[in-house]
Amino acid sequence: MTAPPRRSGRPRSAVLTRELIMRTALRLLDERGEHGAGIREIARELGVRPSALYNHVTGQDDIVGGVRELVSDRIDVSMFDELPWYEALRLWAVSYRNAFAAHPPTIALLAVRPLEPGLRTNHMYDRVCAGLITAGWPLERVLTVVVELESFVLGSALDEAAPDDMLDPGVGEGLPHFRAAYAARARDLQTRGLSASELAFRSGLEAMLTGLRAEWEAYSSVRSGIEG
Amino acid sequence: MTAPPRRSGRPRSAVLTRELIMRTALRLLDERGEHGAGIREIARELGVRPSALYNHVTGQDDIVGGVRELVSDRIDVSMFDELPWYEALRLWAVSYRNAFAAHPPTIALLAVRPLEPGLRTNHMYDRVCAGLITAGWPLERVLTVVVELESFVLGSALDEAAPDDMLDPGVGEGLPHFRAAYAARARDLQTRGLSASELAFRSGLEAMLTGLRAEWEAYSSVRSGIEG
Repeated sequence: MTAPPRRSGRPRSAVLTRELIMRTALRLLDERGEHGAGIREIARELGVRPSALYNHVTGQDDIVGGVRELVSDRIDVSMFDELPWYEALRLWAVSYRNAFAAHPPTIALLAVRPLEPGLRTNHMYDRVCAGLITAGWPLERVLTVVVELESFVLGSALDEAAPDDMLDPGVGEGLPHFRAAYAARARDLQTRGLSASELAFRSGLEAMLTGLRAEWEAYSSVRSGIEG
Repeated sequence: MTAPPRRSGRPRSAVLTRELIMRTALRLLDERGEHGAGIREIARELGVRPSALYNHVTGQDDIVGGVRELVSDRIDVSMFDELPWYEALRLWAVSYRNAFAAHPPTIALLAVRPLEPGLRTNHMYDRVCAGLITAGWPLERVLTVVVELESFVLGSALDEAAPDDMLDPGVGEGLPHFRAAYAARARDLQTRGLSASELAFRSGLEAMLTGLRAEWEAYSSVRSGIEG
């Protein structure tokens, strides 16, 4: 197949679509950080005028929403159909962390922006809420459980983006407890074949789920008491 | 007191010190974000040439280290001298979150940069490690407990910087579980007089500490078994 002739004076570019704009925004965010993915930068990258983007997006907030969808599309929620709530929550947390760890500059950006209306991301939240409600969590507690787990997940995704020797006390005198703990952890990580951030994510997730299960079991025994 | 006459051709500026450079860097970070606090921007803000800064700092990494010290100086560790480890860890987490929530742009910046050598921050880690070691935590587990709690704390500090209606499903059809959970949480927050992020931080912290205590008690009973 022969390439169509280029129209003179215009750079060759793929057909401009909303999807292409969002994918380009995410790539520029990853490459350049938050300030590298404005309307102007996206337009330049796609070889079009900024005004051409406005046929497909309403502005920067819309682009942030589209980026949120691209990242959160990778978060699996299917397990809520099959597994007990705490096992589903565990797998959701793992999937959530992986989705954001793949795009570190989106973590702080999306964490402080309100959820844009009409996103596919809203359906993810609806599915997780449904799972917790069905499992018997008190309705007013459901969204807070989601947010506290999200805080841990996003903090862990940031930690995943850090160098593995993040907390190295370095060589020298002093700091005896810090140095001893660092050396002991290093040996343990070697034995397990895990990175520091992977181990902290796994054990922190278990700690949080253990705490949440203890709370949930207390609700269940209250319910059994009432019903029994 | 009369102000000294300005030397012609030079902006009036405070005496340049390392401390002043670090405080200016932190202020510019807060005002402009990560890319607004480079050597050049700090120099311009202080009315000096960039080269003048190098009499006091070795470069951008040194400045990041100084900013880390300024933020982490606000984190209290004195409670590890007096309280059981989990109560000390709870207060440390609260103090840590408040320190970073006061400077949101530092959260993602400092989370992904390795700990600079020779900082006062290292002494904070030494004190926390000492508290956990003394309490009987296995040495190889100590730093991972610190990191998993830090991940939750930093994620919570990001959430604190978000608008309070962050997870608002908005008006409209669909999303029945998400909407019901949102409305029930809103009523609960109103009753408690708490923000969504404050409640999620408190309850997530309790969940994590409950999980950590369960783990620690298992170590203790193994020890009693060996010793008894």
